[in-house]
Amino acid sequence: MTESTLPPCRRMVVLTEGRTTPFYAKTAMSLVKYRSSEVLALLDSTQAGQTAGKLLGLGGDIPVVASLDDVDSPDSLVLGIAPPGGKVPPEWKSIIVEAIGRGLDIVSGLHEFLSDDAELSGLAAKHGVRIVDVRKNNEDTPSDCVEFRPGCLRIHTVGHDCTVGKMVASLEIQLALVKRGIDAHFVATGQTGIMVSGEGCPIDCVVSDFVNGAAERLVLRSQHHDVLLIEGQGSVVHPRFSGVTLGLLHGSAPQGLILCYEVGRETVKGLDHVRLEPLAKLRDIYETIGSVRYPCKVIGVAMNSRRVDEDAAERERVRVEAELGLPACDVYRHGPDVLVDAVLALREELGL
Amino acid sequence: MTESTLPPCRRMVVLTEGRTTPFYAKTAMSLVKYRSSEVLALLDSTQAGQTAGKLLGLGGDIPVVASLDDVDSPDSLVLGIAPPGGKVPPEWKSIIVEAIGRGLDIVSGLHEFLSDDAELSGLAAKHGVRIVDVRKNNEDTPSDCVEFRPGCLRIHTVGHDCTVGKMVASLEIQLALVKRGIDAHFVATGQTGIMVSGEGCPIDCVVSDFVNGAAERLVLRSQHHDVLLIEGQGSVVHPRFSGVTLGLLHGSAPQGLILCYEVGRETVKGLDHVRLEPLAKLRDIYETIGSVRYPCKVIGVAMNSRRVDEDAAERERVRVEAELGLPACDVYRHGPDVLVDAVLALREELGL
Repeated sequence: MTESTLPPCRRMVVLTEGRTTPFYAKTAMSLVKYRSSEVLALLDSTQAGQTAGKLLGLGGDIPVVASLDDVDSPDSLVLGIAPPGGKVPPEWKSIIVEAIGRGLDIVSGLHEFLSDDAELSGLAAKHGVRIVDVRKNNEDTPSDCVEFRPGCLRIHTVGHDCTVGKMVASLEIQLALVKRGIDAHFVATGQTGIMVSGEGCPIDCVVSDFVNGAAERLVLRSQHHDVLLIEGQGSVVHPRFSGVTLGLLHGSAPQGLILCYEVGRETVKGLDHVRLEPLAKLRDIYETIGSVRYPCKVIGVAMNSRRVDEDAAERERVRVEAELGLPACDVYRHGPDVLVDAVLALREELGL
Repeated sequence: MTESTLPPCRRMVVLTEGRTTPFYAKTAMSLVKYRSSEVLALLDSTQAGQTAGKLLGLGGDIPVVASLDDVDSPDSLVLGIAPPGGKVPPEWKSIIVEAIGRGLDIVSGLHEFLSDDAELSGLAAKHGVRIVDVRKNNEDTPSDCVEFRPGCLRIHTVGHDCTVGKMVASLEIQLALVKRGIDAHFVATGQTGIMVSGEGCPIDCVVSDFVNGAAERLVLRSQHHDVLLIEGQGSVVHPRFSGVTLGLLHGSAPQGLILCYEVGRETVKGLDHVRLEPLAKLRDIYETIGSVRYPCKVIGVAMNSRRVDEDAAERERVRVEAELGLPACDVYRHGPDVLVDAVLALREELGL
C-alpha cells in the first residue's frame, strides 16, 4: 500500500486495557471525540462499568467494558494507545487473538507492527480480517513536483514544537468549514489523525528521500476537495524532527499556514536546554522557507491554552493578535471561527 | 549497523563492465580520483587494454582489465556505478559470484541490495567475505540534541540543487586543510562519499523521523577531529529532497557553510519548470534556518564552472565575490585555497 487506508470501523471497540487514562490513552481520546458515534465501547477489564467521560474527560457515556461479549456486533478492535517508540503490551496479545477469532479487523498505531507477528497474521488470514498497522508504509518514490488542481486551497498547520495541537486545530477548522457548507477535507499525516480520518500517511515513518513525495501524493489523492486541512508535524526548527516538517511543508505546498503553539511553553518538549523561537520569527521562517512552489503565508494563530486560566488565555489572545496582526484563538476554548474566517478570506483573495 | 563501515578495500577492483564512461561510471570516477593508489584496475571486458584516464578522463594509467585473473591479489570488488533508483545489471551477477568465490569483499552503492540476494549472501558466508550495501542503514532513533565537542569546527557544504559538487568541494577543502597540517576529516553522507572515505551514513535512506539523529551521530563519531567537512545533500528549497537537506543541516549543526552551485544552471535538475533561487536569497535562507543550535553563516562559495570556459568562469567568480562579499572559487579550476582560508578564518574567529 502507498496509503494507510483503514477498514470502515463503523462499530469499533477501543482497546485501553489497564491504561484508560488521559496520559496513556491519547488515541482513544481522539477517537471518542472525533468518531464518537462509531466507538461502541472502551475495553478495559480493570475499569469495567465506568464511562469514557469519567475516565478520560471526553466521550461522555461511552461505556468501559470487561469483555468483547459485552459489545453488540463490533466490527473492529482499535488499539487506543500510541506512545513514542511504543510496544504492544504483552498482556494485550490474547485480547487481540480473541478479537481476530471473532472476525474483528484490528487497527494499531504502535511502532511495533502487529502484522509482523506471524501468529497474528496467520490468524487474520484464517478468519478473513485485516490487521492494519497505521505507521506502516511503502512510500518509495520522490516527489514529481506536479501542479495541484488550481481550485484546491491547501491550509497546513505548523507549529513551534511537537504536540501543541496541530491535529486538533486542523480537525476543528475542517469540521467548522463543513458546517458552513464548504467541501473541506482533513489530510492526516500521523497515526492518530489517520485513525480519526480513516486514511492518510504516517509521514515521519517515510524514508527521508521520499517524504516530500509522500506529502505530495497525499494532496494529489485529496485535491478534488475544495479546501484541505493538512495536519502538520514537528516544527521547521525542531532539532529532532525538522526534516519531517520541511518535507511535509514542501510536498504539500500550502498557500496558507495556521501557526500553532502552546501558551507558556518556552523550551522544546523533551529538550529543556533548547529554547523555542519567538512566534514572529517563526512566522518569517515558515513564510520564507514555505514559499517555494507557491507563495505561502501565515493566516492565523491557533493557541493551545490548556495550562492557563480563562483570563490569562484572553490576555494572551489579545497580545498575540496585536503582535502578529493575525486572528488568534484556542479552538477548544474560543471555537475555531476566526481561523475559519481567515481560511475563507484567503480563498477569496486567491480567487478560488 | 548504525554506520556504513566498509572493509579496508586497500586493493580494489572497480566493476564497470560495459559502462566505463563518465555518464555511467560516476562512482568509479570518484574512486580513481580520491583513492587512486588503492584502485588496482577497472573490470570491463569490453574495454580491456584501455586505461581509466583515457575512458573517464581521470585515474591516469589505472588499467581496464577483462578478468579478475589479470589483477594481482585484489581484496575487494567495488561496483563502480550508482544511478538513481539503480538496479544491479543482470550480467554483473556472475562476475560478483566469481569475486566472492575468490575471497573478495563486495561493496555496492546501488539501491538494490546485494545482501538481500540469498544466493550471494550464502556464498559470502561460505567464503568468509563481506557484502556491504552502502545505502543500507538501520538508523532508528531520533536526535538527542547533545552538545558537540567545543573544539570541533563543523563546516557543511550546501547548495542550490543536487549534483553541483558538494562532495567534491568537501573533499578538496579537507585534503587541502590536511596538507596545511590541520586535523580535518571528511564526513560522508552519500554512497559515493562513503565509498571514498570508507565510512559514513547514506542520509537520504534514513527514515525521516531519524534523519536529524543520524546526522548528529555522524558528527559524534567524528568530533575528535578538529575540523569536519560534512558532505551536503540536495537543497533546503529542493521540492523533492528538502527534508533530507534540513535534517542533515540541523543534525550536524555546522558553524560554517560553503554554498555550492553550478554556473549557468537555472532550473532544478530534472524539474525544468522549477526555477532555482538566487544565491543571495539562498544564503539568507540557509543562515536563518541553519542558526538553530549554533549561529551559522555562509563563509564561501564553491562554484562548479564545468559548463563554461576559463574567461567566463573568471568573470563569474569576480561577480559572485562582489555580489555576496564572500570568497568564491571552482575547487577544480582554481584550487580550494580561498575556501580553506575562509575555514581557518572562521576557526580563529570562534577561538577554536
